[in-house]
Amino acid sequence: MPRLLAALCLQIYLCSFLGPVEGGKVLVMPVDGSHWLSMKILVEELSRRGHEMVVLVPETSVLIHGSDAYVARSFKVPYTKAELDESMNKLKEGITKAPRISDLLENIIGLLSFTNMQVKGCEALLYNEPLMQNLREEHFDLMLTDPFLPCGPIIAEAFSLPAVYFLRGLPCGLDLEAAQCPSPPSYVPRFFTGNTDVMTFSQRVKNVLMTGFESILCKIFFSSFDELTSRYLKKDVTFRDVLGHAAIWLYRYGFTFEYPRPVMPNAVRIGGINCAKKNPLPADLEEFVDGSGDHGFIVFTLGSFVSELPEFKAREFFEAFRQIPQRVLWRYTGVIPKDIPENVKVMKWLPQNDLLAHPKAKVFITHGGTHGIYEGICNGVPMVMIPLFGDQVDNVLRMVLREVAESLTMFDLTSEQLLGALRKVLNNKRYKEKITQLSLIHKDRPIEPLDLAVFWTEFVMRHGSAEHLRPAAHHLNWVQYHSLDVIAFLLLVLSTVVFIAVKTCALCFRKCFRRAQKSKKE
Amino acid sequence: MPRLLAALCLQIYLCSFLGPVEGGKVLVMPVDGSHWLSMKILVEELSRRGHEMVVLVPETSVLIHGSDAYVARSFKVPYTKAELDESMNKLKEGITKAPRISDLLENIIGLLSFTNMQVKGCEALLYNEPLMQNLREEHFDLMLTDPFLPCGPIIAEAFSLPAVYFLRGLPCGLDLEAAQCPSPPSYVPRFFTGNTDVMTFSQRVKNVLMTGFESILCKIFFSSFDELTSRYLKKDVTFRDVLGHAAIWLYRYGFTFEYPRPVMPNAVRIGGINCAKKNPLPADLEEFVDGSGDHGFIVFTLGSFVSELPEFKAREFFEAFRQIPQRVLWRYTGVIPKDIPENVKVMKWLPQNDLLAHPKAKVFITHGGTHGIYEGICNGVPMVMIPLFGDQVDNVLRMVLREVAESLTMFDLTSEQLLGALRKVLNNKRYKEKITQLSLIHKDRPIEPLDLAVFWTEFVMRHGSAEHLRPAAHHLNWVQYHSLDVIAFLLLVLSTVVFIAVKTCALCFRKCFRRAQKSKKE
Repeated sequence: MPRLLAALCLQIYLCSFLGPVEGGKVLVMPVDGSHWLSMKILVEELSRRGHEMVVLVPETSVLIHGSDAYVARSFKVPYTKAELDESMNKLKEGITKAPRISDLLENIIGLLSFTNMQVKGCEALLYNEPLMQNLREEHFDLMLTDPFLPCGPIIAEAFSLPAVYFLRGLPCGLDLEAAQCPSPPSYVPRFFTGNTDVMTFSQRVKNVLMTGFESILCKIFFSSFDELTSRYLKKDVTFRDVLGHAAIWLYRYGFTFEYPRPVMPNAVRIGGINCAKKNPLPADLEEFVDGSGDHGFIVFTLGSFVSELPEFKAREFFEAFRQIPQRVLWRYTGVIPKDIPENVKVMKWLPQNDLLAHPKAKVFITHGGTHGIYEGICNGVPMVMIPLFGDQVDNVLRMVLREVAESLTMFDLTSEQLLGALRKVLNNKRYKEKITQLSLIHKDRPIEPLDLAVFWTEFVMRHGSAEHLRPAAHHLNWVQYHSLDVIAFLLLVLSTVVFIAVKTCALCFRKCFRRAQKSKKE
Repeated sequence: MPRLLAALCLQIYLCSFLGPVEGGKVLVMPVDGSHWLSMKILVEELSRRGHEMVVLVPETSVLIHGSDAYVARSFKVPYTKAELDESMNKLKEGITKAPRISDLLENIIGLLSFTNMQVKGCEALLYNEPLMQNLREEHFDLMLTDPFLPCGPIIAEAFSLPAVYFLRGLPCGLDLEAAQCPSPPSYVPRFFTGNTDVMTFSQRVKNVLMTGFESILCKIFFSSFDELTSRYLKKDVTFRDVLGHAAIWLYRYGFTFEYPRPVMPNAVRIGGINCAKKNPLPADLEEFVDGSGDHGFIVFTLGSFVSELPEFKAREFFEAFRQIPQRVLWRYTGVIPKDIPENVKVMKWLPQNDLLAHPKAKVFITHGGTHGIYEGICNGVPMVMIPLFGDQVDNVLRMVLREVAESLTMFDLTSEQLLGALRKVLNNKRYKEKITQLSLIHKDRPIEPLDLAVFWTEFVMRHGSAEHLRPAAHHLNWVQYHSLDVIAFLLLVLSTVVFIAVKTCALCFRKCFRRAQKSKKE
């Protein structure tokens, strides 16, 4: 009995060190669009577990709506929905154009103008004194944010909140840099190089050059972030510095998708978090896909961002679909021709993951966003991939390399090409076998991605940080980190020693030589 | 109904890709001594889960005995138990001697002679044709081994078995090198430097020099391993190459103990695997510790390797213990003086983890082996640490830095010093608070270390490997990995361009200059 009592006392004593275990208050700063779709899953789960979730939503939001699971706090932004749409449309315009050498630059400019608009929105939030004061007074326990935009990390820093980041990655690897994660260019391919993790010498040269180029790109791309960060926080810090204060990085990928590479202890991989929950299909869809017989059906979406195509391009798809026995479900909001084939069902929105989970799903035509790819992997459905922007070309390459997908380019896509790719994936069993293997490996894990994300988010709430996972590298600058100062010092010492040794020898040699000459003369 | 049937078919189809899920056959090649104590826990758990475990045991084994959980296969070694004891005693001799500058060398020579003996034992096993043939015919699914000795990795390679390694680390970081894990010397301290993860410039110089020295040390230390590896496998490979084929590395540490640093995806941390299971204390021990009243009791062990001390040294301990009100449990097999204090209970063996789990345990006097440290952390008992060999000095430094322990040196230990350290840890609440925090963080994890170890071992059995976690860096040599060839090439190109530019400019300048001079003259 006394032992029991003592044990109980110890338990109480231990618990006194714990922060909030349940009922924490979480401030959420998401990024609108597809980024939100998987973060929402975590937000809803945390809410279900009794945490109070407050989500900051720009008034122009496209996909972040009110919910029972969280309190949405709308904030004003200095642009209209129409202006935002226009900026987004500019990005979409390039989809069907032939790629040119100037594309990279154009892409960057497009993305820059888009993110600059978002940064302006962020600024409007930060300098919205009443709202910020209000938030500050709510004494949150944690900031859960997507660091693709600077607001979340800056607010976390300003409010001294521990931060959990939820992301796929940041342009030019800023996330890795900020987290002090090594990323050797010899086998970690840089984006937009077309390289894989196995490179020839010339590919490695390209990768190293891209690494250098990226660091310049980073400076340009994140200059508006840096300016806002230091101005708002009133100290000489960059956005990267602030990012480095993250407690936990939740990466929505894993190594069935990404190339294996070094990771940091506070980086947690939760790839596939978006495909765990499956709902039964609505009756009309169930009937449509069940009626596909042995041929099965195809799911076709181009992500939440692109739901229409120019008519001439859409026609190529319809023409290809007309020639196959499979039924096709296409998420498409564009102009529908009169004579669309009978086997095609066009919808404004479709339950992608639920459809892919259906055993008759044969092929998934996708643009190669990470959400879609994981839905393909989780459900073991081989893919025909048509990358459109950003990381998608690289994402698709990863899947093609694993032999679970065929890839096409949108600008020159014809119905024949699409038909060829579809028939290849439908008829060659290899694709199904490979994606099934990949699916098995992906799903063979000790803990589900959502549970892992919840665990680490709550861990940070319980302990106020994850300090034990934070490398001491954060104390070092670039030169120190790479030991360049030490190497320079050692080289200096070595060269001094060699110099003195050589000089001494030379002196001795000269003296001896002179004496020898002298004695010869004598 | 047809959908259910189809789903079932898919399930069967998926399962056809899986290897053995239950009832696998595992060949276990352990390392005798304390290394075995935690590996045994995994072996027993795998056996409990229905796997057939075959453990290879040298006939001179100290701690690996027969068990219901596994089949022990004894093999002959070319040395006697007495010779092994003598070699081990040589290592122990240095414990109470004052440290000298030549210690590192002596330690290395001692360890070399010890491991060379073990390598001879390994050789005897490898060339034991009947046994090896017998093992080969048993068609194992997996090799579970401690790569501190070369047998396990070599047999795995020879039998083409996927290998799971169970370890604390290898001398001079060979494990990290083999796994292609970056280990920046700017903040990852090398063993025997006395550095922590935060270093001054001179400490970083020392660390870089030690990194260089280690690579030479590695060559010497592992030369007998390399020779045996290439001779037995009849190909030009080093031990490091073979190590690199590991599917999974199970590290028996975590970041409540180690400094946070980059890790590879196929490295799994299972620190504290040894302190999960708790048994009730035997009646006499329960009575002894319960009778310690509010003062509580102290647990004192120096690991499985050292259980005695020279009489003059033991006396210092007894004298210190005589002056404290706490009861002391000491695992000690040496000569016991007649007048030992009443509060001390000397035992040949003691249930260390069960004792530390008792709420009246106040201090743990330990040598700083990782097993003991984790038992201290798990149970939240502050420590007085007296490191003896190998990694122990570095282990102790980690604990002192976390303010959960005081450290002493055995060679000059006096009863006053011990008393001082004990009173400090007993009376200053800070130690208990800090170890309690550390304990909480250590135990706050999404999955228990044993379950994690079982999961990844079975994962490798199910899939025959963990290929998706294996970095492409394994295809590269040292120069390629560090992009030195690419840098050299780029420098060459750059210097050629600069050279041509300078020459061209010089030529132009000279021509212009000459023309100018000519026209002047004219």
